[in-house]
Amino acid sequence: MRVVLHPRHPGGVDDALEAVPGISLVRTADDDAIVEALGHAEVFVSFRWDPRYLTGSLRWVQSVSAGVDQFPLDTFARRKVVLTSARGVHGPQVAEHAFALLLAMTRGVGVSMRESTTRTWRSRTGEELAGKTVAILGLGTIGEEIARRATAWGMRVIGTKSDPSRYGGVAREVFAPEQTTEVFRLADVVISVLPDAPSTRGIVGAAEFEALGAGWFVNVGRGSAVDEAALLAALDGGLRGAGLDVFAEEPLPEASPLWHHPRVVMTPHSAGLSPEYGPRLARIFEANLAAFQGDGAWVNRVV
Amino acid sequence: MRVVLHPRHPGGVDDALEAVPGISLVRTADDDAIVEALGHAEVFVSFRWDPRYLTGSLRWVQSVSAGVDQFPLDTFARRKVVLTSARGVHGPQVAEHAFALLLAMTRGVGVSMRESTTRTWRSRTGEELAGKTVAILGLGTIGEEIARRATAWGMRVIGTKSDPSRYGGVAREVFAPEQTTEVFRLADVVISVLPDAPSTRGIVGAAEFEALGAGWFVNVGRGSAVDEAALLAALDGGLRGAGLDVFAEEPLPEASPLWHHPRVVMTPHSAGLSPEYGPRLARIFEANLAAFQGDGAWVNRVV
Repeated sequence: MRVVLHPRHPGGVDDALEAVPGISLVRTADDDAIVEALGHAEVFVSFRWDPRYLTGSLRWVQSVSAGVDQFPLDTFARRKVVLTSARGVHGPQVAEHAFALLLAMTRGVGVSMRESTTRTWRSRTGEELAGKTVAILGLGTIGEEIARRATAWGMRVIGTKSDPSRYGGVAREVFAPEQTTEVFRLADVVISVLPDAPSTRGIVGAAEFEALGAGWFVNVGRGSAVDEAALLAALDGGLRGAGLDVFAEEPLPEASPLWHHPRVVMTPHSAGLSPEYGPRLARIFEANLAAFQGDGAWVNRVV
Repeated sequence: MRVVLHPRHPGGVDDALEAVPGISLVRTADDDAIVEALGHAEVFVSFRWDPRYLTGSLRWVQSVSAGVDQFPLDTFARRKVVLTSARGVHGPQVAEHAFALLLAMTRGVGVSMRESTTRTWRSRTGEELAGKTVAILGLGTIGEEIARRATAWGMRVIGTKSDPSRYGGVAREVFAPEQTTEVFRLADVVISVLPDAPSTRGIVGAAEFEALGAGWFVNVGRGSAVDEAALLAALDGGLRGAGLDVFAEEPLPEASPLWHHPRVVMTPHSAGLSPEYGPRLARIFEANLAAFQGDGAWVNRVV
């Protein structure tokens, strides 16, 4: 079975797929090579989409990403091309990353690391997460991984979900996105895992930071969910800290005050990266390969 | 009931004790004031001990620390002075601090914070804790708080305890201190919560770091447990990282290479600090005050 791989993918995905039995992995270097290879292949593993990829032989696309907004779902349905997502590959690392950023603020690791560059020894009284309320914006697969870890550590978990009636996880209370400001009011800590979408852009703004008050904000979703001017104003006001893996513009521009703000802990968009990414994607792919060959059920089938 | 308080104590302890009903808290400024106050008081809350404190009226000492090695236990027994410890006041914050240091290494927060001082945007693939083996050196009250959090996050927990036969917690396997090297061999991550004692000094040395190999080491106990020269050699060799809250000499000397080592994440001896320290100590004190007055059982009674 020939399987064509798009050249843009997280490290390790190629090697993990290569190890799946029964396939011949076709690595490609550019769009021309992809189109050429897809001319006589049924299976495509990709992060990206281009209308030229829709060859007559294409039957199944395994997305390398959890989100599938980049794919033409209607066209796939019409042309009977199956689409499966990589939902689940990011959960553990993004959840651990969210806590890495949060704990770096509450336990003073971020400020101490900055001060270590000038050999400054200054103890600070940190805070405890146990007993605090954390609100998770976007209680999907990744959000639930965060919710489970927070609950196990003695935090009270609330959050938002596009359709709260479909929620079945550990959070105590789940609100609709329209109630985001109220959720900030109820929380000590807010963690956003919101993707980039028309409905999420700028959903976290001045009113939300005012409602949060002297709390902590973490963003491991997408930078577009946050009004960065409002975030900066809050950081100069009552907000105790922001732990940011994502930004409105990436790489973060040289001129951004976020680079140096004493209440900011940051990482350069790396929450989703993990040596387990490839192996987890390969397991999803392998199950779907069996389904494609008529043996078992599809995993994460979207179309 | 007059209660004398030693002037050296973590922030918030005085205010929390002041709020305990039925007592008159006597704050003191120096040894002379302490001895004077203890001349006509039965209760002393203190971190420190001096033979002059043993007045004829003293009947009960509530330690502000979890360890009580600084107190003359035999003398107290002979003079019928009750001693109670503060065991339990450090657990939650030290456990969260250990994970703050560990996650700052595994998710690249430490290195990213250093790089933020030069506005450097460089993503790195972090690691996942889930599925890894963590060894906790010193499975006492604090160690168990770490063990519970690690287990809930999908880690396999092992550790050491002075008497493994008395262990009743969540760790899968518990070894004697003599097996410390073997414990390092079995672990991906080692977290030390060992106190300073003749039996723990230098227990972590070259053989242990060699057994750990490409793992991570965290110290939220006392710096004396670690041979720092061996630690530095390991950091220049295969050890992936060290997360250190404590050091052989504190404040860490200007000349120490630990300040700048790229594989070190550090905080200045602040793991035990928490706004909950005072309230938790006051709850122990309040229960013991009742016991002292004949109403209920002692908590953490040592003598």
